[in-house]
Amino acid sequence: MNLRAVWLDYDSSGGRAIVKMIDQTKIPFTVEIVTCPTYRETAKAIRSMVVRGAPSIGGAGAFGLAQAVVEFWEKPEFEDRIRTAYQMLLSTRPTAVDLKHGLDFVLKNADSLTPKLAVAHAQEFADGIVDEGQKIGKIGRALIQSGTGILTHCHTGALALIDHGSALAPIVQAWVKEEKRFEVYVDETRPRLQGRITSWELGQYNIPHTVICDSMAASLMARGKLIDLIIVGADRVAKNGDVANKIGTYGLAIVANHHNVPVYVAFPSSTFDPSTPTGQDIIIEERSSQEIRMVKGFSEDLKHPHVISIHPEEDKIRSFLNPAFDVTPKELITGYITGSGIFSSEQLKVKMT
Amino acid sequence: MNLRAVWLDYDSSGGRAIVKMIDQTKIPFTVEIVTCPTYRETAKAIRSMVVRGAPSIGGAGAFGLAQAVVEFWEKPEFEDRIRTAYQMLLSTRPTAVDLKHGLDFVLKNADSLTPKLAVAHAQEFADGIVDEGQKIGKIGRALIQSGTGILTHCHTGALALIDHGSALAPIVQAWVKEEKRFEVYVDETRPRLQGRITSWELGQYNIPHTVICDSMAASLMARGKLIDLIIVGADRVAKNGDVANKIGTYGLAIVANHHNVPVYVAFPSSTFDPSTPTGQDIIIEERSSQEIRMVKGFSEDLKHPHVISIHPEEDKIRSFLNPAFDVTPKELITGYITGSGIFSSEQLKVKMT
Repeated sequence: MNLRAVWLDYDSSGGRAIVKMIDQTKIPFTVEIVTCPTYRETAKAIRSMVVRGAPSIGGAGAFGLAQAVVEFWEKPEFEDRIRTAYQMLLSTRPTAVDLKHGLDFVLKNADSLTPKLAVAHAQEFADGIVDEGQKIGKIGRALIQSGTGILTHCHTGALALIDHGSALAPIVQAWVKEEKRFEVYVDETRPRLQGRITSWELGQYNIPHTVICDSMAASLMARGKLIDLIIVGADRVAKNGDVANKIGTYGLAIVANHHNVPVYVAFPSSTFDPSTPTGQDIIIEERSSQEIRMVKGFSEDLKHPHVISIHPEEDKIRSFLNPAFDVTPKELITGYITGSGIFSSEQLKVKMT
Repeated sequence: MNLRAVWLDYDSSGGRAIVKMIDQTKIPFTVEIVTCPTYRETAKAIRSMVVRGAPSIGGAGAFGLAQAVVEFWEKPEFEDRIRTAYQMLLSTRPTAVDLKHGLDFVLKNADSLTPKLAVAHAQEFADGIVDEGQKIGKIGRALIQSGTGILTHCHTGALALIDHGSALAPIVQAWVKEEKRFEVYVDETRPRLQGRITSWELGQYNIPHTVICDSMAASLMARGKLIDLIIVGADRVAKNGDVANKIGTYGLAIVANHHNVPVYVAFPSSTFDPSTPTGQDIIIEERSSQEIRMVKGFSEDLKHPHVISIHPEEDKIRSFLNPAFDVTPKELITGYITGSGIFSSEQLKVKMT
């Protein structure tokens, strides 16, 4: 894409830093840019999932903290205010470790911090993710042959990784750069239907694909033998190789193992968290039941975005559970596609730390 | 319920037979009765899923064929017209074997067939299913203890089984008759969201329950250990015990086996098909992509039913697959809850044929 998922407009002379991002809640309906004049709006945009995908969230967080450094530079209580901004940004989404990595990256060499340096750090962090996405695509595309049936879950393209993508990068590169021809299946990914974003991105590259409901994957593996390979992204990878990713990934990995279909997880180094020993130590975000109940779509004539409620309200009798992520243990994962190679869980510990 | 899911109003003096059914496409929005003056409207109602659930479909088919016998009795080409009606009704839904069983039941003792007898046969078939539902509830409820966490998929209550239900019957009876207190989890069951009907029916009995997206079941089993028991219904059970049921059942069974959670399938004898040797011989209905794309819900103020499109249209790049059912092999099934006992797949062959 020409656009990145999130970026920073910095005017050093005027001392203004504005974060801009593609509004992912509007995809595939329209492409709109959201403008965040201060870190508070950036935090709000992260929390409300205007920006999604752990690495893009990390980039947005880094830019947001750089905004705060610009805003409060040489103001009273600079350090307190930066601490407050750091905490507010960090609290927006608990599962993505990229967020903490991005925030810490901005504050490296804190003693010599200046607005210009904070902005440069945030940019370096974002550019590093983009660069890794490109490498993940190049390394991962070797797993794909003409005729391979690939299933992916959630959204892991350019919008999720600032540019290029994680799990989607090998698929795009194999199709566009290597001109391999294969089948792509896209889980619609309830409740937030991020598969629509994947479908929209594949459409940008004219890559044909088939959208299915999440519950159909097992059937496709069994009866049709349509799936040869699963590639998913990650929201956090623990030191031992356990992976937190979008809800449904764990069930998909169990089903794939049952059918001897290999499961690969693609992610940039910002998603790897050596300070989390195993998946059991990852906090899983519980989100509002509104996400299950309310669905955004088009009016029947496809002309107007429209939100409806597909389930009745919560009451004394009816409740909802909405864990946003699940944890897939390393035993169910065939390999990890990173910017520096495809690793086993054993290699991961050595190569990434 | 006071109402049954489908019934026949027969006026033997006027020679009129009218099939009536609760419009399941309107649940949980409103309760409306659809009136089918001839078998053609009954066939149309079955095809468009006004009536759902294999046993209810069987009952509706039986009533429809009885309607045809009443309509064409002593008319020219009676037998040809009955054959046409039989074929039209049979073709409405290919997966549910109850439909064929219901149609054949109406035509038993064909040589002495009269309108009154055809109606009596259809009624006997429907009453038999209702009776079995009650027995399934009584037998199956022994599997449920206070504190048990039960997950069910799709809809298997009174509306699916004319009355009482299959998989839902043990849950309802354990709660209402035995006053056991336990947790019920309901898969929303994409694409048609039949979990809404299950939720609505549980609400009729004031049984508290939690609705989840289909992709969340594995996570609930792993992290929370919230699920101790799975009970599902069936659209067709092959002679060897393989089960065709709503898409997602197979994946759920794999995931349950992975966690050592027992999987029970509850069904009346009309769903058992000794003429189908294994699951591989069951035709799986492929339904329209519209079912994935279009979702019926409420307006945001919850006052008006509303349909929106949640995925863009099919085109050269984007397609959809919509298998309505999948096949769960007997190896993944712990036991079969029938009106005459809980059986293993080995026992099933002996007891049901």
